[in-house]
Amino acid sequence: MAITVVGSVAYDSIETPAGKRDRCLGGAATYFSLAASFFTDVRVIAVVGEDFGKRQEAVFDKRGIDRRGIERAPGKSFFWQGSYLDNLNEAKTHQTDLNVFASFEPKIPAEYADSEFLFLANIDPVLQRRVREAMPDVKLVAGDTMNYWIKDHREALGEVLKGLDILLINDTETRMLAGNNNLVQAARGVLALGPRTLVVKHGEYGATAFFSDRSFTKKREGQTPHPFRAPALPLEEVVDPTGAGDSFAGGFFGYLASQGELTPAAFRRAMFYGSVMGSFAVERFGTERLQELSRKEIDDRFILFRELTHLD
Amino acid sequence: MAITVVGSVAYDSIETPAGKRDRCLGGAATYFSLAASFFTDVRVIAVVGEDFGKRQEAVFDKRGIDRRGIERAPGKSFFWQGSYLDNLNEAKTHQTDLNVFASFEPKIPAEYADSEFLFLANIDPVLQRRVREAMPDVKLVAGDTMNYWIKDHREALGEVLKGLDILLINDTETRMLAGNNNLVQAARGVLALGPRTLVVKHGEYGATAFFSDRSFTKKREGQTPHPFRAPALPLEEVVDPTGAGDSFAGGFFGYLASQGELTPAAFRRAMFYGSVMGSFAVERFGTERLQELSRKEIDDRFILFRELTHLD
Repeated sequence: MAITVVGSVAYDSIETPAGKRDRCLGGAATYFSLAASFFTDVRVIAVVGEDFGKRQEAVFDKRGIDRRGIERAPGKSFFWQGSYLDNLNEAKTHQTDLNVFASFEPKIPAEYADSEFLFLANIDPVLQRRVREAMPDVKLVAGDTMNYWIKDHREALGEVLKGLDILLINDTETRMLAGNNNLVQAARGVLALGPRTLVVKHGEYGATAFFSDRSFTKKREGQTPHPFRAPALPLEEVVDPTGAGDSFAGGFFGYLASQGELTPAAFRRAMFYGSVMGSFAVERFGTERLQELSRKEIDDRFILFRELTHLD
Repeated sequence: MAITVVGSVAYDSIETPAGKRDRCLGGAATYFSLAASFFTDVRVIAVVGEDFGKRQEAVFDKRGIDRRGIERAPGKSFFWQGSYLDNLNEAKTHQTDLNVFASFEPKIPAEYADSEFLFLANIDPVLQRRVREAMPDVKLVAGDTMNYWIKDHREALGEVLKGLDILLINDTETRMLAGNNNLVQAARGVLALGPRTLVVKHGEYGATAFFSDRSFTKKREGQTPHPFRAPALPLEEVVDPTGAGDSFAGGFFGYLASQGELTPAAFRRAMFYGSVMGSFAVERFGTERLQELSRKEIDDRFILFRELTHLD
């Protein structure tokens, strides 16, 4: 089943202990759609500037991603500059230029209308909501957000959360959104805001899914649904953490969309595929690794993740 | 097979967001032996003061732990006071009184001599080494240490590490011991110091085992041994984190000692039992939860940990 994703397509200038890159192709929608494209059809809604050229288009085209919803506007593309010199787990932002994104009005191509899966990547919740409402017939909606929207755009974000099946955020965002430092209590607080499932991304420690109903958990009477935890690969070298969370989301949602039935087993495998795609993303700068990946490499790493965690 | 453990038996005064307790029975050897006692015979070497009475003895006796190696010396038992008010993952130490521990000279009862497993809990590496050398015939030796010994007693610690089969420490200690911030590289650095296996405890994120040989990993040609990761249970409430790492070690090593053959599968289950025992320890203050636990509860939680991580 096809996924429509709305989010940023951007240029990133990144410095990490492994080196630096100027103006790599980045943005949440880019990482998400590249990761998801290994599993299912992906359609992107975004806006770029006049600096987005043939070479960038080719990155999407090579992976068969539908970019008819990437609008070109006068001006420059969204630009982010950040570094991870002290801490690979947290970016230090040096510059954010919204550029054409400042006046972005998402338009959904008619060809996207039959998408059954919708992913609202981390952008202004007002825009997330608008896209959600323009696609009322989707079967499953997932989304992401960040500290900025949690802190200063709580009301608009609250409206988005009510319409989400699955929210994917990190530990800090979960604690901030619920105002509770205990992860389990915070997870319950976030689930009470609307999403039926919460996937908390722990960076190098993997991710945990919490459930408010039994859609994705094994049925057992008289028990609250158990969480599920997928590992991350202990990595020799993290070249660039940028986009790891969006790549997790792409692998997770892409795999889920590729499955006929949304069973608990499919959900669990999707969590593993999310971790797998996140682990590849950080091996090279920007989207370099995702661009040249093969399905065979992905499935080999899935098997490795299984061995890493399974008793037999 | 029986385990001999050398380490501290102490009194702890603890404050956490859940409350406070004065002078609970604690110490690494206490948590370790209680946790291990659910799986195998445990024999303790330690020193206590005149304040260690019938009630404390009964805690060991009730679990069938051999305490003939707990020497009683004139003076007071080791005392530690700490709090976790800001951060449940890291204790703030307010007071440490070594008391009778300051002049501790471990003596090994003749009845302990046929122990096949030896655990060197976190004490002065000079003492760890002395016990190791006094028990040359043990089949498997594991140990723990802490930042204090890593920082200021590097040489003595180095001698201990050379004689260890398995070292169990946390993330911070691993990075500090290797002088490397990347966990995988740090793990390799620590393995180069002697231990054949390194188990890194991640607190609420579980634990990862790294291997320098294939004793505990599945055989595959031409590949470096994969790590193995056991989860931690996402906990609703952590009442008192004290002793979680020692309880992990006790569950892990106790289960391993209970197995006839030290296979990779036994090692993996041991990692899970370690996580299980750590997760129980933090549910109540001090050793309260470990004292009243049943093997049925332990096995039920083992099954829960399996469900929490396994694809099917």
